[in-house]
Amino acid sequence: MPAKNGKQFIDRIDHANPRVWIRGEQLDGKLSDHPAFRGLMLTQAELYDMQYHPDYMERMTYSSPSSKDPVGLSFMQPKTKEDLQRRREMTMLWGEKHHGLLGRSPDYMNTGLMAFSAAAELLGEKRPEFADNMRKYYEYCRERDISLSHAFVQPHASRFDDLLEDGSIESCAAQIVEQNRDGIVVSGAFLLATQGVTTDEILVYPPALPFIPEENNPRTFAFAVPNNLPGIRWICRETLALGDSAYDYPLSSRFDEMDTLVIFDEVLVPWERVFILGDDRLSMRLFQESGFHVHCGHQVLCRYIAKTEFTLGILLYMAETLDRASSPATIDKMTEVIAHYETLKSLLVAAEAGAAPDRFGSMLPDRRPIWTANVLFPKMYPRMIELIQLLGGSSVIMIPSELDFAGESKPALDRYLRGSGVDATSKTALFRLAWDLSSSGFGGRQTLYERFFFGDASVVASRLYQTFSLSEKEACIGKVKAFLQSKDE
Amino acid sequence: MPAKNGKQFIDRIDHANPRVWIRGEQLDGKLSDHPAFRGLMLTQAELYDMQYHPDYMERMTYSSPSSKDPVGLSFMQPKTKEDLQRRREMTMLWGEKHHGLLGRSPDYMNTGLMAFSAAAELLGEKRPEFADNMRKYYEYCRERDISLSHAFVQPHASRFDDLLEDGSIESCAAQIVEQNRDGIVVSGAFLLATQGVTTDEILVYPPALPFIPEENNPRTFAFAVPNNLPGIRWICRETLALGDSAYDYPLSSRFDEMDTLVIFDEVLVPWERVFILGDDRLSMRLFQESGFHVHCGHQVLCRYIAKTEFTLGILLYMAETLDRASSPATIDKMTEVIAHYETLKSLLVAAEAGAAPDRFGSMLPDRRPIWTANVLFPKMYPRMIELIQLLGGSSVIMIPSELDFAGESKPALDRYLRGSGVDATSKTALFRLAWDLSSSGFGGRQTLYERFFFGDASVVASRLYQTFSLSEKEACIGKVKAFLQSKDE
Amino acid sequence: MPAKNGKQFIDRIDHANPRVWIRGEQLDGKLSDHPAFRGLMLTQAELYDMQYHPDYMERMTYSSPSSKDPVGLSFMQPKTKEDLQRRREMTMLWGEKHHGLLGRSPDYMNTGLMAFSAAAELLGEKRPEFADNMRKYYEYCRERDISLSHAFVQPHASRFDDLLEDGSIESCAAQIVEQNRDGIVVSGAFLLATQGVTTDEILVYPPALPFIPEENNPRTFAFAVPNNLPGIRWICRETLALGDSAYDYPLSSRFDEMDTLVIFDEVLVPWERVFILGDDRLSMRLFQESGFHVHCGHQVLCRYIAKTEFTLGILLYMAETLDRASSPATIDKMTEVIAHYETLKSLLVAAEAGAAPDRFGSMLPDRRPIWTANVLFPKMYPRMIELIQLLGGSSVIMIPSELDFAGESKPALDRYLRGSGVDATSKTALFRLAWDLSSSGFGGRQTLYERFFFGDASVVASRLYQTFSLSEKEACIGKVKAFLQSKDE
Amino acid sequence: MPAKNGKQFIDRIDHANPRVWIRGEQLDGKLSDHPAFRGLMLTQAELYDMQYHPDYMERMTYSSPSSKDPVGLSFMQPKTKEDLQRRREMTMLWGEKHHGLLGRSPDYMNTGLMAFSAAAELLGEKRPEFADNMRKYYEYCRERDISLSHAFVQPHASRFDDLLEDGSIESCAAQIVEQNRDGIVVSGAFLLATQGVTTDEILVYPPALPFIPEENNPRTFAFAVPNNLPGIRWICRETLALGDSAYDYPLSSRFDEMDTLVIFDEVLVPWERVFILGDDRLSMRLFQESGFHVHCGHQVLCRYIAKTEFTLGILLYMAETLDRASSPATIDKMTEVIAHYETLKSLLVAAEAGAAPDRFGSMLPDRRPIWTANVLFPKMYPRMIELIQLLGGSSVIMIPSELDFAGESKPALDRYLRGSGVDATSKTALFRLAWDLSSSGFGGRQTLYERFFFGDASVVASRLYQTFSLSEKEACIGKVKAFLQSKDE
Repeated sequence: MPAKNGKQFIDRIDHANPRVWIRGEQLDGKLSDHPAFRGLMLTQAELYDMQYHPDYMERMTYSSPSSKDPVGLSFMQPKTKEDLQRRREMTMLWGEKHHGLLGRSPDYMNTGLMAFSAAAELLGEKRPEFADNMRKYYEYCRERDISLSHAFVQPHASRFDDLLEDGSIESCAAQIVEQNRDGIVVSGAFLLATQGVTTDEILVYPPALPFIPEENNPRTFAFAVPNNLPGIRWICRETLALGDSAYDYPLSSRFDEMDTLVIFDEVLVPWERVFILGDDRLSMRLFQESGFHVHCGHQVLCRYIAKTEFTLGILLYMAETLDRASSPATIDKMTEVIAHYETLKSLLVAAEAGAAPDRFGSMLPDRRPIWTANVLFPKMYPRMIELIQLLGGSSVIMIPSELDFAGESKPALDRYLRGSGVDATSKTALFRLAWDLSSSGFGGRQTLYERFFFGDASVVASRLYQTFSLSEKEACIGKVKAFLQSKDE
Repeated sequence: MPAKNGKQFIDRIDHANPRVWIRGEQLDGKLSDHPAFRGLMLTQAELYDMQYHPDYMERMTYSSPSSKDPVGLSFMQPKTKEDLQRRREMTMLWGEKHHGLLGRSPDYMNTGLMAFSAAAELLGEKRPEFADNMRKYYEYCRERDISLSHAFVQPHASRFDDLLEDGSIESCAAQIVEQNRDGIVVSGAFLLATQGVTTDEILVYPPALPFIPEENNPRTFAFAVPNNLPGIRWICRETLALGDSAYDYPLSSRFDEMDTLVIFDEVLVPWERVFILGDDRLSMRLFQESGFHVHCGHQVLCRYIAKTEFTLGILLYMAETLDRASSPATIDKMTEVIAHYETLKSLLVAAEAGAAPDRFGSMLPDRRPIWTANVLFPKMYPRMIELIQLLGGSSVIMIPSELDFAGESKPALDRYLRGSGVDATSKTALFRLAWDLSSSGFGGRQTLYERFFFGDASVVASRLYQTFSLSEKEACIGKVKAFLQSKDE
Repeated sequence: MPAKNGKQFIDRIDHANPRVWIRGEQLDGKLSDHPAFRGLMLTQAELYDMQYHPDYMERMTYSSPSSKDPVGLSFMQPKTKEDLQRRREMTMLWGEKHHGLLGRSPDYMNTGLMAFSAAAELLGEKRPEFADNMRKYYEYCRERDISLSHAFVQPHASRFDDLLEDGSIESCAAQIVEQNRDGIVVSGAFLLATQGVTTDEILVYPPALPFIPEENNPRTFAFAVPNNLPGIRWICRETLALGDSAYDYPLSSRFDEMDTLVIFDEVLVPWERVFILGDDRLSMRLFQESGFHVHCGHQVLCRYIAKTEFTLGILLYMAETLDRASSPATIDKMTEVIAHYETLKSLLVAAEAGAAPDRFGSMLPDRRPIWTANVLFPKMYPRMIELIQLLGGSSVIMIPSELDFAGESKPALDRYLRGSGVDATSKTALFRLAWDLSSSGFGGRQTLYERFFFGDASVVASRLYQTFSLSEKEACIGKVKAFLQSKDE
Repeated sequence: MPAKNGKQFIDRIDHANPRVWIRGEQLDGKLSDHPAFRGLMLTQAELYDMQYHPDYMERMTYSSPSSKDPVGLSFMQPKTKEDLQRRREMTMLWGEKHHGLLGRSPDYMNTGLMAFSAAAELLGEKRPEFADNMRKYYEYCRERDISLSHAFVQPHASRFDDLLEDGSIESCAAQIVEQNRDGIVVSGAFLLATQGVTTDEILVYPPALPFIPEENNPRTFAFAVPNNLPGIRWICRETLALGDSAYDYPLSSRFDEMDTLVIFDEVLVPWERVFILGDDRLSMRLFQESGFHVHCGHQVLCRYIAKTEFTLGILLYMAETLDRASSPATIDKMTEVIAHYETLKSLLVAAEAGAAPDRFGSMLPDRRPIWTANVLFPKMYPRMIELIQLLGGSSVIMIPSELDFAGESKPALDRYLRGSGVDATSKTALFRLAWDLSSSGFGGRQTLYERFFFGDASVVASRLYQTFSLSEKEACIGKVKAFLQSKDE
């Protein structure tokens, strides 16, 4: 089965029937019928349908190297700059559809898996079967258009070591509790598997923290499993989709990616799904050497651009309806966002222009512009959200609903809530959108999510800083030294 | 009837039965039964109950100068610094109860009305009956503990002038459409009458914008009327209270002050309720000369302090449960908030220390520290909210609900969501609070509300700037001139 | 005479002997002997010498289209992307030499003149001779490697209109006081002709402010003249070069570009040097349509990059000598600068990647990335300077001089002022450099200069904002409208 | 000898004749004749003269408890709130004279010494003679109006331990190299003894860093000695006073407080001048328990206010001469500074209102408002300086000198450099002042100095944070806990 369409996406999720709890109850119907999931799933289905839409198919898929079937282009390992451009165009097509609001648009994890697979030889340095596992898993996902979530972060409690009466230490950190003929048995919990229940499988890969340079660390592993494997339990936060009306909740009704706490209770992971076992050093190397954050960062930067463009459009439209497009204070606000937008686009151009092949044969974008974007966007985005509030003021709050316009208040609303060049219904639709992005619960999560997308600020800063190797730093310092010495000449 | 208690507050609102629309339907039961209002009304009832609580009564009320009944202390015109201190203590008692989350705590409008009434002689300069009207209305409200909302801002559409076919101009700006023996007849709409439907009456007072120095401007007036007068229609935004559970929605279930669009459709305002009519110059003077923004600003500054203290407590508690209280990065964040807190408290001390009697016999706090707070807080508050997000990260999002803890996931949640020194239920309660303040729809509105509480940034800045009179500016410049000339000596 | 070398540059300036006042005295020796000019002139001479240095000549010059002589490459009109790249490499070669500290490196004005000349046909729309004048002047400058300053801004007093006793108005705004057979006679003054006296000629071009749509505005003109024309007087600010020691004043001894107030007292400008006369509309168009700010902005962006790289090197070196290179707080500071650096480099890549031919046959870089840099750098640069102070602390202040190391305190200084891995002399040299960039009078002017390089913040913001044409804004808004309507499908 | 006057101040310094090096040469005439010192010394003399000026004497001095002579009021231990008020008025009188530009105005160190002396009993806990030494030294300084500098910070090199060939460790950290009958012998160096050579004596007191809980740490001590003791050598940075003209250098010609590197080469400190010896724990306690940073912080806060008022005056005057006082952008800038000014004044009011007696009988201001000011001002001040640059633009750079106005360019300057309502000479004087504060070398040092006045940002933040004791934090957290529990009621 090649690239899937929307219906197939929905059917497969509905059929898998993972064990999901929401607000204390285990879900027992179809996920796609549940108000917490159906809007998002329809949006994702639209994305998948684009893979077969005549306008897009050529840009969304490529011919599988094994089956020759059309498969999702985000699975394609880029080998040339043209490949990078194709990947970017594919991500932009999806980005224009979800306007950057889906952090877990399918191309994100597809890209991550591609990066791991391209670097699979690393995994096999000591245990060749793990390299094979990764390559086969990648092919499995590509050929079936498997959608993935992933889990890295453990709850804070995983750091506690409780001293038991018998002198032993108990910890709730995720760990391998048994290895047997069939596989490894894992227990533990992971935070924030976003879209965990609206994807097919989950890739689990805790970072080696604290790093222990040993090879049998029971807390170190990487694997992937279907969401419905016995022993896996998904606990959802409450939905931020307040209703189905796209007028009232233009964003949350369509883009609320559910976050989950996923709990592994003695889950048996079959050997063919194990990629790393016990080796902290390898665990760190895979991340760094596979270019995971670079390949994914390329997708993320495209997403940032789509989101910034959408926000800019909202601001420009708001200014127009409020008759303020030519006030100096408004121009200042708009120009801030335009400068963000141009900066992000330029970083993307530079990342591709500076791409170079890595040792795994991938055409790797220049990581510095990409990681610069990761440093900048967590500050740019909250500022853009602030600008929406500052431009909109009370108009962002005093927003009637679709039902108000359907009822007997309509004439009054039509009269009093008109904007410049726009009727009350359209103006209110715009300001509900501004509200949903800047001030609703959905908007609050988006802001928080962007702040931490690739780690907290110091992690992201340090990632960029480390790209300056010792020799590069010395070269940069060397120019200063040369300057200081030039006086003696 | 003297100061009221909570039950009286609720009964009166329920009895008034104003014409309220919410999500397209006219409300027809008791407001206090409706999920959009009941939480807030119970909170307000608690505030009113404090007026008779033995621990507080002496500090919450004073003996009416007319009836000798105990009446609400926020109605008291301050004549001495001790009076100011009493007013501050009363506001702080309420503030400690609502933690600054109620912008329309009853003392706010009570204070505003007191300010207008104390300056009533202004209103009578040309039409003595208007001064009487104001004084009587103030006494009426004080003696009956009438709660008030107010309306100033008109929708953007009020600025449009539509040219009709017959050459006349039509505008939807609020205006007097008729004057007759019984009163004035008013049509128009006002944005954001916060708590409009959970108070007894509304004070309407559009600013003279654009200022037209004429005395018969039909768009210039001030009056107060009961909420249920014929011709008044209230259109609510949707509620931000997502449920009744105080565990799940610790803030929105109790503090969501409904914002309304209030529409006047040929409402007859009796003459005895008219305070200003047609006189733009007077309309501007009343605001400036009554000290409205100073007296209210004193109440607001107390509220800022309560809110900042609450936020600081949340941050300290979060840091504790996350084991991060002693990391330098956390200390920096906490100290930012502590500096805000100390600044606000100092501004309050200085405002009272510098108080002086005005020409109406009121002890007027020093307006500069107060308006400085109004300049600073709209930047401080969003920063504090940002700090909650930055400190909490994913813990602010991945928050199970009360029902999750009641169901079969409890053992897993207990195990994995513990914090340092705190069990999972309590930790989750804290992070739900952090979420409701920083990232929920309720929190989004709070942030927006604080940004614009006393006008947009340039209005608030200009208000402070104008306190520097020409002579003071010259004195300040004079020191520079003297310095420059001292060189010649 | 083709591209000049350093000696020719100095000889020509010394020979021209313009009328220069500094600290109240008219200069009467050679400029190159005067302490206020000699350091800068030597630096500029080094730049010009590079034009004949075998390592650089091919990259610094090109064959003149008329004479076939080697002429300065900054005069070359770019017609292809390769031309842009050549121009960039030339500017970078000079930039690496002056580290971005010369705002008036010769390539800046050469580029500006090239832009005007390429668009000369505009000037000839009504008066063909003006187009000819511009083209000939450009060729004259290119073939002789004439160096230029320019003057745009008039003193604030130019806006005053003084009412004389006879009822007439007197103004000191620059204006044409006479036209005669030989040329136009101009009086007026211009602020901040940077490097006015260390260049050969000056291009004068007041903006049409306030814009008066008439064609005989006596305040509207453009021309170029030699610095030593009768009636021109140059008044210098005091020098910021505190001495000749490159150890003590590593920057000011070499890079202090003198700013001048240039006064025209009935200066006769020959007709062949007049480019615009009286036509406000044309005056505005020339700037906008010639791409002056784009072509120059390309040079400026290269300069920003050189300056940022130099500052980054200083910071990295400081951190190393202070043993703080691996502290999280230092990494945060460094990463801020790295993010600036990567952003600027990416904007340059994007500006060239997006270049397109204009109607004058120039390959015009994409103006948006360039003007984004102009919006960002005036905030980036002061922040970088702040970071130097924050990293260096008292080490930036307590810096002995070259003479201290030559005297009997040397042993003590050697002992106590060592850094990590560096002796006291070298460490002090570094911190003197940090001081001269961040905290000296020279540094203060640099910061101020960068804040206003291309106009004040609102002018620069508005320039970027205007690049979004109405149709592009509508396209951006259109996506939002489409999104809002998609709900109805 | 009681409080001194200006002449006595100068004579005493000139007579002491310490060993001072500047730019490699040992100074051998009178300090008061040297261009690097004379301007500052005249300014300080003016301050001392105020102690006998009939307008000020009563406010500047008090009757010595021992001699009954009039002595400097900054030596007075405050025992009541009135005493605090007297101290504040005295500091403000001096502050109005030096406009906050002297960080080492005499009252600063007088206050510090008073704080140590009041807490002298601490010093005597183990060695009673040290308490006596401190009390006597304080009395000695008070009765003779001794002026003091102090030294805390050692050069970075003091942290290096060099391994010698014989296996021993050599360090250049300051230490006691010998104790003998006459006293202790000290070697080492200290950075940034500001005004070290224009005061009588120096108090040396290295912080116990790293803290070693032992009592014979040879690197731990405190003492005070005359500046001219054998073995003390002062190495000055170069002067920032570019000339004597108060027109050209309105600040640097009068307020350049020289910073010095002071080197102790086997200096014998007599026993009666030793206050702490070897006891790290005591060394830390003295700082914390004496309230040094609180008492001095009270003086510093007054200084901040004087400086802010002066800056505000400069900005207001600039805006006036540039015709921009009523533009919204200017009002925003001014209001920022006004908000700073009001904040600082309110913190002072609150610090005094909240003062309470400490266990040494001092009326100690509330430390939180004071330390809040120390957290805020290092960010406020650079922002104010930035605002001067942003308001002034090129007018801050293109500033002719006094000599220009005396020469033949005067008519042109008078014509072209006028401002609104001000002639060219006065306008230029103002902008030279703006330059000297914001952009000269003197200004650069002021900015750097304020950033680090009481330590770097994290030290100052932590100092404030620590004022929240565990119990206070718990009280603050307790309100949140109570709130969360209130839902269950």
